[in-house]
Amino acid sequence: MNLGKSTFPLNAWYAAAYDVEIGRELLPRTICNQKIVMYRRLDGQAVALHDACWHRLLPLSQGRLQGDEVVCGYHGLVYNPDGQCIRMPSLQSLNPAACVRSFPVVEKHRFIWLWMGDPALANAALVPDMHWNDDPQWAGDGKLITVKCDYRLVIDNLMDLTHETFVHGSSIGNEAVVEAPFQVTHDDKHVTVTRWMDSIEAPPFWAAQIQHARKYSGAVDRWQIIRFEAPATVTIDVGVAPAGSGAIPSDGQAGDRSHGVNGFVLNTITPETDGTCHYFWAFARNYCLGEQALTHQLREGVARIFREDEAVLEAQQQALLDHPDLGFHNLNIDAGAVRSRRLIDKMIDAEQTPHSVIPIREVA
Amino acid sequence: MNLGKSTFPLNAWYAAAYDVEIGRELLPRTICNQKIVMYRRLDGQAVALHDACWHRLLPLSQGRLQGDEVVCGYHGLVYNPDGQCIRMPSLQSLNPAACVRSFPVVEKHRFIWLWMGDPALANAALVPDMHWNDDPQWAGDGKLITVKCDYRLVIDNLMDLTHETFVHGSSIGNEAVVEAPFQVTHDDKHVTVTRWMDSIEAPPFWAAQIQHARKYSGAVDRWQIIRFEAPATVTIDVGVAPAGSGAIPSDGQAGDRSHGVNGFVLNTITPETDGTCHYFWAFARNYCLGEQALTHQLREGVARIFREDEAVLEAQQQALLDHPDLGFHNLNIDAGAVRSRRLIDKMIDAEQTPHSVIPIREVA
Amino acid sequence: MNLGKSTFPLNAWYAAAYDVEIGRELLPRTICNQKIVMYRRLDGQAVALHDACWHRLLPLSQGRLQGDEVVCGYHGLVYNPDGQCIRMPSLQSLNPAACVRSFPVVEKHRFIWLWMGDPALANAALVPDMHWNDDPQWAGDGKLITVKCDYRLVIDNLMDLTHETFVHGSSIGNEAVVEAPFQVTHDDKHVTVTRWMDSIEAPPFWAAQIQHARKYSGAVDRWQIIRFEAPATVTIDVGVAPAGSGAIPSDGQAGDRSHGVNGFVLNTITPETDGTCHYFWAFARNYCLGEQALTHQLREGVARIFREDEAVLEAQQQALLDHPDLGFHNLNIDAGAVRSRRLIDKMIDAEQTPHSVIPIREVA
Repeated sequence: MNLGKSTFPLNAWYAAAYDVEIGRELLPRTICNQKIVMYRRLDGQAVALHDACWHRLLPLSQGRLQGDEVVCGYHGLVYNPDGQCIRMPSLQSLNPAACVRSFPVVEKHRFIWLWMGDPALANAALVPDMHWNDDPQWAGDGKLITVKCDYRLVIDNLMDLTHETFVHGSSIGNEAVVEAPFQVTHDDKHVTVTRWMDSIEAPPFWAAQIQHARKYSGAVDRWQIIRFEAPATVTIDVGVAPAGSGAIPSDGQAGDRSHGVNGFVLNTITPETDGTCHYFWAFARNYCLGEQALTHQLREGVARIFREDEAVLEAQQQALLDHPDLGFHNLNIDAGAVRSRRLIDKMIDAEQTPHSVIPIREVA
Repeated sequence: MNLGKSTFPLNAWYAAAYDVEIGRELLPRTICNQKIVMYRRLDGQAVALHDACWHRLLPLSQGRLQGDEVVCGYHGLVYNPDGQCIRMPSLQSLNPAACVRSFPVVEKHRFIWLWMGDPALANAALVPDMHWNDDPQWAGDGKLITVKCDYRLVIDNLMDLTHETFVHGSSIGNEAVVEAPFQVTHDDKHVTVTRWMDSIEAPPFWAAQIQHARKYSGAVDRWQIIRFEAPATVTIDVGVAPAGSGAIPSDGQAGDRSHGVNGFVLNTITPETDGTCHYFWAFARNYCLGEQALTHQLREGVARIFREDEAVLEAQQQALLDHPDLGFHNLNIDAGAVRSRRLIDKMIDAEQTPHSVIPIREVA
Repeated sequence: MNLGKSTFPLNAWYAAAYDVEIGRELLPRTICNQKIVMYRRLDGQAVALHDACWHRLLPLSQGRLQGDEVVCGYHGLVYNPDGQCIRMPSLQSLNPAACVRSFPVVEKHRFIWLWMGDPALANAALVPDMHWNDDPQWAGDGKLITVKCDYRLVIDNLMDLTHETFVHGSSIGNEAVVEAPFQVTHDDKHVTVTRWMDSIEAPPFWAAQIQHARKYSGAVDRWQIIRFEAPATVTIDVGVAPAGSGAIPSDGQAGDRSHGVNGFVLNTITPETDGTCHYFWAFARNYCLGEQALTHQLREGVARIFREDEAVLEAQQQALLDHPDLGFHNLNIDAGAVRSRRLIDKMIDAEQTPHSVIPIREVA
């Protein structure tokens, strides 16, 4: 599959599961081409081990949990949460080499994050900011979809929302998205695409939200502030406010969004293999916080929108396989995606440098 | 799949669809390993474009028709029937390089024919003669089956009808087909296999036809005149007449078939990929022209016969994959097929010559 | 699939079918990566031919039997049981080169055995001993399962029964199997693993057998005597007797098993391809011989146990494909399997020697 250069960096935190997916059962999942088994210890701490017994490679996920340990389902080797084998059948003395790799884990903002690269570099402070996902000022929910595409196609998709007009015309897209100008800024780790649509007709989704929350119907000012954090997280600050109510920033001053409705689309995409990915998304809002029915309705409504993307993304991945001779062409709308890919490439290159150094041969 | 030499020439007209398959919806189909999207313009003219957007490769067939143009379903790029991109989102000026390949199309004898090679060579006069398919003196109908085999296995199948005895024993085959002698003739572009069976028992299919049309039951003279036109069209003049009624040509004079029944089995086979093909067939008759029920019955009856071939052809293709070390052996019955393959090879070789020319380097 | 060294020797008898599977219909089956068609002649003798017509490779199994001969389903070539083509359509004289390979066949102990290598070495005396399978002193039955794993994983599985504790805990496994010591012996062709469990609680399966047959419930002496015969047959002498009733051999004297119950698990595993195998098993017992319901119940009960193995074996095969960089590690429990694999490797190496001889170049 992956001929030549890797498609993702390893020294990064990747979401491996929603918090509620991990419990006292063994959950197998492939992350960055690695087979992983996850579970919680009795004290609730999440554990991630390589999912292949040292002895005969049977996936440990086919065994069972025994307290904090995993018992292999073939010959009963027992591993502790560090991946060390602490019991072998018919043997008194243990081979200290008998172990499976254990991966650093952090649980934060409703996700279980794994560090797939050098454990010495695993700094919990580097986990992407997804705080809206468990902040009491925000309410929402999300899903995991596993999509048959390179995770970078999802980044491309999120960094250019003009596709809303063509892919999501019945919900969040209309001509205004294509017509509005946008700005792209970046630093070493982030790319931001900002688009304000001044006094436009709200698309169906947002018309319904502002009507429900603020009893307002009429022209709106709409914003999309897309923020990429390398290598695979995109948070999108979205919303509408009554046209002219002051939401649009000016003269370097933040606008007043208090008359509008604000949401955050939270996305983090984890390579499963080179050609497939786990796409975790959530939608959090700052209005009608206590309405459980609204949370339910928004989750299912947004899920329909993401299924529209899924169809496009999988067709695009198939097209890449069908046309190995063709590449992508970039338009100005791709500026955010192009910049994001550069940050990803920089991370990959940094990891691969040691391997590509060509030793200099001394000539006498 | 295709290691080394191509399995088909590109400079040829290939049937891509029955006329009725193409309309005001976008139809995706793979032809000669190329992804194609087809539709009709408002004036009815058929269009064939490469089915991958220039920008991000999404199949155009996942977009929508807008008048005579195709709108990409991802970011809204608009292509005209020549494949030129005439609108891009958020852009005033167009990149003139933005286009997809457009293929020459001819509609003739109920098929949409595409020219997959050099467009400068696409001469409509070269479309194979399948006029029985829309000639008022003939009545009939046909189907498309997509078969998991190299299209040349279908040519082999059609150029030797002794297989009827073993594959189609319940309908059109009997011992007489194997026993009768046959002649093979050819020119630069065609191969003809002629077999006359003199005063034989008609097989079930033909016994029913001549009984229905001529109220005749008894011994018949039967003919099969198979005509291959390179690279992928085979028309078969078939029929029976009462034995001794003068149908058999003699002394260079055409026979008198007026007491018999005559059909044409029309076949044109288009490579989908190197190992699969679109097999278009039709059966036209010159008797009982107005009987719609007979047309229906014959189409379904002949379809059953073709399904018997399909099972054999797919098993044979699988056998080729299973036995890369084994080849075919030829018998005298294969003379028509062998000759046909030679004409195909000649077309392929002619196309590949330019690429294999080794430049001669001048040595001073 | 098979890159480099073969995974199995060819000069060996492999079970290709249960006796009742072969009759007057053409049965296709892949054995050692070869397509085979099997049937019985009118006199009942089993025949095995290469399943690809010499002419155009159609599987002969898609043709039909005609007396002792096979008629190809495409063009009617007729082959005799030696694989010689004795009739060709439209031809008086035969090409003597027209033939398919015929494989030596022996029917013994309820299996049809094929010799896949050099026919000159096919000695019927080398068929593995599975006599319990049709000995009137024993009663039983078995099944064939086709498992998606290298046949050697099955050998590994059978040569170490500590897995019973973890895979078959509800039927034949308990802690005693892991705890009991075992001995491994071998000669040039066989490996024997002997385990006696002295005065233990019987696992559910055996508790039920000895209760049914001997009206005994209580502690038992249990034995497992596993005998591997290279390359792919494993017979296991298993049973329990009342604890202390004299079953355990001592001082070189065979024990007295007359108060107990004895079974033989008969296994022979035939490579289908490098990564799949036909696993023939049977369970024969020496008690309650006339009880047909017990035979039925045991066959289905043992089949459930084998399905537990099947799940483990297929997961292990997948793990080997998923982790081309990882290998197996051996524990002391693997001594029997390691020794068995060495015998297999020796057979493979012996066959490949001629091909790997490097000619010595004379230097003047």
